[in-house]
Amino acid sequence: MIVRNTPSFRDVLIATRGSILPQILRPLLVVLAASLIAVLIGQAAPSWLAPLHAMPFTLIGLSLSIFMSFRNTVCYNRWWEGRQLWGRLINAARSFARQTATLERAQAAPLLETLAGFTAGLAARLREEDEVAAIARHAARDADWTGAPNPTDAVLRAVGMGCRALADARAIDAIHYSVLETQLSEMASVQGGCERIKATPVPFSYSLLLHRTAYAFCLLLPFALVPQLGWWAPFPAFLVAYAFFGLDALGDQLSDPFGRDENDLPLAAMVRTIERDLLHAAGHRELPPVIEPDGYVLN
Amino acid sequence: MIVRNTPSFRDVLIATRGSILPQILRPLLVVLAASLIAVLIGQAAPSWLAPLHAMPFTLIGLSLSIFMSFRNTVCYNRWWEGRQLWGRLINAARSFARQTATLERAQAAPLLETLAGFTAGLAARLREEDEVAAIARHAARDADWTGAPNPTDAVLRAVGMGCRALADARAIDAIHYSVLETQLSEMASVQGGCERIKATPVPFSYSLLLHRTAYAFCLLLPFALVPQLGWWAPFPAFLVAYAFFGLDALGDQLSDPFGRDENDLPLAAMVRTIERDLLHAAGHRELPPVIEPDGYVLN
Amino acid sequence: MIVRNTPSFRDVLIATRGSILPQILRPLLVVLAASLIAVLIGQAAPSWLAPLHAMPFTLIGLSLSIFMSFRNTVCYNRWWEGRQLWGRLINAARSFARQTATLERAQAAPLLETLAGFTAGLAARLREEDEVAAIARHAARDADWTGAPNPTDAVLRAVGMGCRALADARAIDAIHYSVLETQLSEMASVQGGCERIKATPVPFSYSLLLHRTAYAFCLLLPFALVPQLGWWAPFPAFLVAYAFFGLDALGDQLSDPFGRDENDLPLAAMVRTIERDLLHAAGHRELPPVIEPDGYVLN
Amino acid sequence: MIVRNTPSFRDVLIATRGSILPQILRPLLVVLAASLIAVLIGQAAPSWLAPLHAMPFTLIGLSLSIFMSFRNTVCYNRWWEGRQLWGRLINAARSFARQTATLERAQAAPLLETLAGFTAGLAARLREEDEVAAIARHAARDADWTGAPNPTDAVLRAVGMGCRALADARAIDAIHYSVLETQLSEMASVQGGCERIKATPVPFSYSLLLHRTAYAFCLLLPFALVPQLGWWAPFPAFLVAYAFFGLDALGDQLSDPFGRDENDLPLAAMVRTIERDLLHAAGHRELPPVIEPDGYVLN
Amino acid sequence: MIVRNTPSFRDVLIATRGSILPQILRPLLVVLAASLIAVLIGQAAPSWLAPLHAMPFTLIGLSLSIFMSFRNTVCYNRWWEGRQLWGRLINAARSFARQTATLERAQAAPLLETLAGFTAGLAARLREEDEVAAIARHAARDADWTGAPNPTDAVLRAVGMGCRALADARAIDAIHYSVLETQLSEMASVQGGCERIKATPVPFSYSLLLHRTAYAFCLLLPFALVPQLGWWAPFPAFLVAYAFFGLDALGDQLSDPFGRDENDLPLAAMVRTIERDLLHAAGHRELPPVIEPDGYVLN
Repeated sequence: MIVRNTPSFRDVLIATRGSILPQILRPLLVVLAASLIAVLIGQAAPSWLAPLHAMPFTLIGLSLSIFMSFRNTVCYNRWWEGRQLWGRLINAARSFARQTATLERAQAAPLLETLAGFTAGLAARLREEDEVAAIARHAARDADWTGAPNPTDAVLRAVGMGCRALADARAIDAIHYSVLETQLSEMASVQGGCERIKATPVPFSYSLLLHRTAYAFCLLLPFALVPQLGWWAPFPAFLVAYAFFGLDALGDQLSDPFGRDENDLPLAAMVRTIERDLLHAAGHRELPPVIEPDGYVLN
Repeated sequence: MIVRNTPSFRDVLIATRGSILPQILRPLLVVLAASLIAVLIGQAAPSWLAPLHAMPFTLIGLSLSIFMSFRNTVCYNRWWEGRQLWGRLINAARSFARQTATLERAQAAPLLETLAGFTAGLAARLREEDEVAAIARHAARDADWTGAPNPTDAVLRAVGMGCRALADARAIDAIHYSVLETQLSEMASVQGGCERIKATPVPFSYSLLLHRTAYAFCLLLPFALVPQLGWWAPFPAFLVAYAFFGLDALGDQLSDPFGRDENDLPLAAMVRTIERDLLHAAGHRELPPVIEPDGYVLN
Repeated sequence: MIVRNTPSFRDVLIATRGSILPQILRPLLVVLAASLIAVLIGQAAPSWLAPLHAMPFTLIGLSLSIFMSFRNTVCYNRWWEGRQLWGRLINAARSFARQTATLERAQAAPLLETLAGFTAGLAARLREEDEVAAIARHAARDADWTGAPNPTDAVLRAVGMGCRALADARAIDAIHYSVLETQLSEMASVQGGCERIKATPVPFSYSLLLHRTAYAFCLLLPFALVPQLGWWAPFPAFLVAYAFFGLDALGDQLSDPFGRDENDLPLAAMVRTIERDLLHAAGHRELPPVIEPDGYVLN
Repeated sequence: MIVRNTPSFRDVLIATRGSILPQILRPLLVVLAASLIAVLIGQAAPSWLAPLHAMPFTLIGLSLSIFMSFRNTVCYNRWWEGRQLWGRLINAARSFARQTATLERAQAAPLLETLAGFTAGLAARLREEDEVAAIARHAARDADWTGAPNPTDAVLRAVGMGCRALADARAIDAIHYSVLETQLSEMASVQGGCERIKATPVPFSYSLLLHRTAYAFCLLLPFALVPQLGWWAPFPAFLVAYAFFGLDALGDQLSDPFGRDENDLPLAAMVRTIERDLLHAAGHRELPPVIEPDGYVLN
Repeated sequence: MIVRNTPSFRDVLIATRGSILPQILRPLLVVLAASLIAVLIGQAAPSWLAPLHAMPFTLIGLSLSIFMSFRNTVCYNRWWEGRQLWGRLINAARSFARQTATLERAQAAPLLETLAGFTAGLAARLREEDEVAAIARHAARDADWTGAPNPTDAVLRAVGMGCRALADARAIDAIHYSVLETQLSEMASVQGGCERIKATPVPFSYSLLLHRTAYAFCLLLPFALVPQLGWWAPFPAFLVAYAFFGLDALGDQLSDPFGRDENDLPLAAMVRTIERDLLHAAGHRELPPVIEPDGYVLN
């Protein structure tokens, strides 16, 4: 994620870090080429393009804007929902730490450390990295979760069994158990929500339809502009293509928020935040350092 | 569901899998035919169409885009809500497994297996397949649920009675019972939500009104374009029809997300996920295999 | 409610069941008449209308579309919220049945039957039918609820007192009571939500403003189209009026979802579903029949 | 609030009750005057205005529509959230009454009456009327709440202490206490939500920006229309101004839903509904009368 | 935050307090300069700009409006969510005060005062002020929270341990503890939500793309308007730039709602409200004064 709030005037002119431009360069060049061809045709054989007129393309362009705005909203909402889910994970981890703060350290610490493993495992799972290794940084390898269909969930189950064992041993009362279990359910919810976003892309047919219409539109537009605008035609054609392709590419990035694109969520930094909170609550005083952005990009 | 994230440039050119094109071929051909007729009339009797002008059609087209965008949002939200409901089912199943993990296996396993039956039954019910057979794969046939007005719900009631029996036998305390019951209520909510989406289509009058306006618009548009664009008229007319009919057809598919269309939700795969989680928690070690996409399509 | 999913091509051509057309016939005819008058004036005194131009009307038309789309969303959301509320009622009834399934029949049955009375009473109340009679089909007439300011709510209070009595008699423990009470609170929420939708229409000033602007626009439009389109003017004018008046009329229907219009919610069928679930759980084996749609319309 | 569902054709023609027209008469007259001046200039010195053209104004007008639609949605949502909050208050009051229905009357009645005082106090607080007097209609004046920074909240605290006292006296068990407390938290939430809406207006800069743009646009538009439309120019200019100013004024009314404007929420009637429910539950049989709308306006 | 509800006609003309104008003065002047250059070129070499036409710019302008409207909605929602979070904090604080009202003062007061410290710490944290000093105004400095990675959260943990200690000392029963803990979880949620908004800006690439397109559009527009409008061109160009840059700048302010801009949330005033509520409940009778707006601006 790029940690800059608002582009300044200077950024608008020259910022490249965080710009979507590099990723849409190819189609933009194609549109530019089409514009030049259109201009040349307009010079060589003006009567060919003469009947073309911008009006019907206004109609198509606006319809397209409306539909792209919808897809954009959908993609952004997936990104923001991903962020909200991780926010809820941070909250649940802190509340769990608070609710176990009066337990004896020997009882609370293993639970908190295993939860840190759960968090690391979830991030690895979402980024398709080594899930088991990530969990094992905090939790002892255990036949029960390393072999499970979903190791991260199995680790959470281990925490749940730990809580249940405390209740059975009367270290906590039944109500206290249900209070802790509420946080674990919340974490299971977060995992389920993240997996839902990851496993269910924006309907492919939808993206395909919009991409095709956008490409067709941007390639036809210069031909429709040349009869009226002549050599000016490439300017608005380029501006339109820049906005449409840019939004499209940005939507693609945001729609899959758990990857490692520049605009994706900083899972590593958030995992670290939770680790620090949990390990501090478990009594550790040497915490792993906060992850800082590297050239404005937080990973 | 089509499990591809973002169409590449190559896909935009040639992908047919996942394209909505085959399903809107007929009306597209009708529009093409109308375009050709319009061009011919424009050639044969230019004065007939001469007064027509694209401007008022811009107005209609944009209004139509705005209204179609609304219907599209509604359809998409139904699809996404369906997915969220199944996500909540996955979460609730996992939490139930976690919360029964310290029970004796002989106590927990029947509950978990019956829950797997509930899940299979819900999917079959939503896809109008053999509900009782689907449940019976995991749960013993029982007079109480096979004859109920809603077998899937009756199976959930059986699980609830099982929990209650554990509580009455003091195997779990009252609070633990209420914690388990929370998950069952969540599952009942999921079933109710899915049945609501299935039983309550987007208002038919709404779809009819938009379809009619869209057809009339796409058939009239070429006639309005011919006076100005001449032989160019079919291009924008086709592009508009492609976008409008495509979005409409896609909305139809998404609005009923539990069917077997290419863009529908992969109920079978999600049922399998839950089965694997529940059966693993019940102590089974030979789990049914994960369902893989077949040619990008997950069922 | 009309239980048809998607209009086929045939429906688009000839369906009348479910069409909004009959209800907007009068204003449509008025617009047609205005169009003809405009054409005649355009023929008789072309210079009168000559300066008129479609452009400013495009502006008005699009602004109007945007505002109508907003009102439409509001109306649709009311309809869908009404459906969601009844869905929650179905869920709560089923969960209550599940949570009382291990009680002795003599204890559970009166509660379940009284709840069926609550459901029937709520539907009657929302449709302004005989509320007390509807309740009395399932619950014994009782001074306490027949005379209450809100009989349906008073019946729910009777169920609550029944649960409390079970708790006081130690038939259920305190936690079990709180679990049942959660469902009753959910039902009270549903009742409150439905009464809110019924009692609070979309702001009248809003509807009035939009209706007035839409009428003025549709009556002026043909005059603005005639100078350019001549005899073609009535076609787009009619199409615009059809879409605008149709959406407006549909919004009016959806905004009050508990009535008996074709597009209103099938309260009777949903009450029956709940009755069947509750009576089956109460041990009845002869259930009232499911209500089937009559000519595609479910009541 | 105006309790009329849908304007009939007759209302569209002549309704004044509920029309926003009287409140936007002044700016409308200013626009009319500007239109006449524009027409006169167009007659006297046609070359002055000749280069003006409606096209760029279409662009401004549509952008403005989009932004106004956003502000409108925000204002409407505030109004509807206000209504939802009061609906939740009604629900919570009824649930509280249900949950105390088996207590002895001498125990329950003071709590229910004090809650009626809370409701009346909240309405008075939101309407900036005499809060303490409103509460005192139902609750005995008490040093603890009359001097509190927030008397309405202090009254709710008094109810909470009453519940707690019942629990300490073993009249209700701990679970029952937590069930009652849930309703009180809900009511505190409602109060907080209402105070949030009241204390946090739509960002002033936002309204100012839109008002200024709308005014500038509506005053410039007739000058841009005159060259083409001549004497017809005032018609579309007036229609546009009517729609824009009307929506703006309506948004202003809705954005502050707790006042006494025609479209504001009927707090007095809702307070009365709750009073009747609570007093009936407290055993009173002579209830204050339902508040009826006065000339379609419910206060 | 500016505490004015609705701009009057006078405000529209002359208000500067709360106007976004000063912050967009520079780009507006640039656009004005570009307009003048365009007019001069149009006079000196009319044939240069002659082929330019406003139509394609209408298309770009409207697409831009649609996308800006989306960004605006996102920014506004962040602001409003920030306000809602603080509203929930107020509610939770009041509910906590109510739920501890029957405890002995010596038991409740330290908890309430530490909560006031939590609130002050959260505001300082969000505004990047001295967090530890803000907390220490109400809570005794304590090794456990002053050294924690997140002092504000650590203070909340201290309150949680206080509640737990009361439960262990049987001053409150287990249920009462869970009721209090619910409020603390709510407060942890609020903190997490605020930190989420603060730490996760609107995707920078998105803002950059829109800013660039808006700048390019506003600079090109006057050149496209000059051929038709001549000396009139600067008027609509300025109006468009005013609306676009204004909305953009306002979105930037709202998207980071916890700062000290004129339109940001009045954290100081809200902290004071909570302090007054909590300290009054803790038995203090000399409360810090309500913070009043200073020249319409509440801090």
